[in-house]
Amino acid sequence: MARTAESKRWYVEEVGTVVSGRDEAIDDEWGLVESRIELTSGFGPAALAGLEGFSHVEVVFLFDRVDPRSVCRGARRPRGNPDWPEVGIFAQRAKDRPNRLGVSVAELLAVEGTALTVRGLDAVAGTPVLDIKPVLAEFTPRGELRQPAWSHQLMLRYW
Amino acid sequence: MARTAESKRWYVEEVGTVVSGRDEAIDDEWGLVESRIELTSGFGPAALAGLEGFSHVEVVFLFDRVDPRSVCRGARRPRGNPDWPEVGIFAQRAKDRPNRLGVSVAELLAVEGTALTVRGLDAVAGTPVLDIKPVLAEFTPRGELRQPAWSHQLMLRYW
Repeated sequence: MARTAESKRWYVEEVGTVVSGRDEAIDDEWGLVESRIELTSGFGPAALAGLEGFSHVEVVFLFDRVDPRSVCRGARRPRGNPDWPEVGIFAQRAKDRPNRLGVSVAELLAVEGTALTVRGLDAVAGTPVLDIKPVLAEFTPRGELRQPAWSHQLMLRYW
Repeated sequence: MARTAESKRWYVEEVGTVVSGRDEAIDDEWGLVESRIELTSGFGPAALAGLEGFSHVEVVFLFDRVDPRSVCRGARRPRGNPDWPEVGIFAQRAKDRPNRLGVSVAELLAVEGTALTVRGLDAVAGTPVLDIKPVLAEFTPRGELRQPAWSHQLMLRYW
């Protein structure tokens, strides 16, 4: 149960890049945005073989436009909205978070060589992609979801 | 559209650790496993404030027991099963993947100080946790899911 005094750390590499899609980090209306993810030169088409059998992909990416010095490690109000409670950074999905990791599910439209086209990925152009996983129904939440009212309000115009 | 000849890379730090739960990396029957995630000493209880309002958390973790030299960057048969097709590493959720990142949804049972208890997290004891996000219904897949038959077969006894 001992905690390490100093956190351990590892390198992660860019495996792909969001090369089109929206260029501005705005909060809402991501649902219809089409984006292209291009794998970096270290990968061939084999890395995406069979992906077209899935309707959706889960993309792990880096919020690289967030200044590491502005990362929140405690609590804050989502979007700074005074109507919503102050909640911990691990109780919200804000981008200025430790490790600056984003995880989003997008609809897969096409796979061509070392690139894929997706709809509804909430990542701006140039965003480094760290992983792409197929979405399996078995990996979606098991059991009924419960979430606070503020989180529904925040998502009203998101997609 | 220019690809970088060399991939960019970044550090990620351990923000928490799986300190109990299963100690063996076996393939199936993760559904009832209870685990505790303890935040590292760089975080206080504020980082988890309000998380108890959510029923599920999404955990990003590192498959740190995977030897980086055994990572697959092309295609392989899931679990080496000859009945299943060879598919790209980004068309499966295998652990020997570039960046060795795992993403899983687990049921949140309790939050106490800087620790949380979850059920159904498919990560072994000692696993470094890189992020914890609340599960919002709005972030689950939008539209109907489609996936190949092999992926359903693979998940038959997983949870």
